[in-house]
Amino acid sequence: MSHPLSLAIIGGTGAEGRGLAFRFASAGVRVVIGSRASDRSREAVEGLRATHGELPLEAADNGAAVAACDVAILAVPFAHAVDTIAAIRGRFRPGSLLIDVTVPVTFEGGAPRLIETPEGSAAERVRAHLPPEVALAAAFKTIPASRLARAGAPLDCDEFVCGDSPESRARAMELLRLLPALRPIDAGPLTTARTIERMTLLAIEINRRYKVHDARFRVVGL
Amino acid sequence: MSHPLSLAIIGGTGAEGRGLAFRFASAGVRVVIGSRASDRSREAVEGLRATHGELPLEAADNGAAVAACDVAILAVPFAHAVDTIAAIRGRFRPGSLLIDVTVPVTFEGGAPRLIETPEGSAAERVRAHLPPEVALAAAFKTIPASRLARAGAPLDCDEFVCGDSPESRARAMELLRLLPALRPIDAGPLTTARTIERMTLLAIEINRRYKVHDARFRVVGL
Repeated sequence: MSHPLSLAIIGGTGAEGRGLAFRFASAGVRVVIGSRASDRSREAVEGLRATHGELPLEAADNGAAVAACDVAILAVPFAHAVDTIAAIRGRFRPGSLLIDVTVPVTFEGGAPRLIETPEGSAAERVRAHLPPEVALAAAFKTIPASRLARAGAPLDCDEFVCGDSPESRARAMELLRLLPALRPIDAGPLTTARTIERMTLLAIEINRRYKVHDARFRVVGL
Repeated sequence: MSHPLSLAIIGGTGAEGRGLAFRFASAGVRVVIGSRASDRSREAVEGLRATHGELPLEAADNGAAVAACDVAILAVPFAHAVDTIAAIRGRFRPGSLLIDVTVPVTFEGGAPRLIETPEGSAAERVRAHLPPEVALAAAFKTIPASRLARAGAPLDCDEFVCGDSPESRARAMELLRLLPALRPIDAGPLTTARTIERMTLLAIEINRRYKVHDARFRVVGL
């Protein structure tokens, strides 16, 4: 059950971050939950242990979390993505991989709307602000945070992975394969995030229209 | 097996158009295959009858086809969409519905690329050139034409339907429900075509990367 990899969750105290931390720790990965304040990370770790028992979870501030890990997941709200990276950009390990899971969607009067970025997508915006020696992939964009957070609910879907190189995608897909009932799909270069992030918006709109909570995608014919 | 609706396929002699004509005629819908030249439509009808036997198929030029039907499917290559509409715009029945199935994708050196339009999507471009009294929906964008054309292959997927009004979407979805193993998904307003048409590009890229031919989508959790 143990895995040589270590995984930092930047902004790991939110619903999506905690869900990812629980799922990867349950798969045997050593997970460091990061937050702006390390006491909040400790609360998140204690909360997960109280519910789920002993798991390979640690707590740190965001900078210490990425300094301690080979792979990091950026799980802050999209509005804080650039500031968060600026605050920790000197702390990434050389050769480390960041997986962007942010969703550039805002709600206006209850209606979801895509946040357009000059770079074309949230993932490309993150790439523009990340140190060049840190590789970037994007994933977990089309799985609802609420599904990730419900520990007992199998993910039961496909997840699109794009990245700034074939190696970045391969590393992210290897990590995703550790989670049960989740099939990573190689969706190509980082520009594909323009499609994937719109699919998140589509899933949210389907949830609203059909009064469901967990609309997500599967590729048929593969 | 017979249905009160009549369906024109504008540009019905291509692979996608013939596939749609066969599938809807097999479901009992009276289908008029349209083409710029009605002798080519007649060849298409005769070809389908030679392979599949008697079916409720007729042949006409594109203008006569839409004049004879309540619903029309625009199945020409996207590059010809605007010209085709201009040539027949006076022939649509009042209150008729057009279903746009065009895909704004081009291939450069074998690599697929999205054709950007000032309107934001192919469907919105079609809307801008269509007479106001003709309603518009978009569908069949993410099902590979080759799959539609293979008569024996079940569609076995979901299909995203968007449109310029809830009524347009409802009418298109009612039509799609006639086809076996296909679930129409209400994807909302016509602007959602910006997402759906990118998903077509994603499906083509998945086909290329995984060396398959029929990648398509299903929504989980619905």
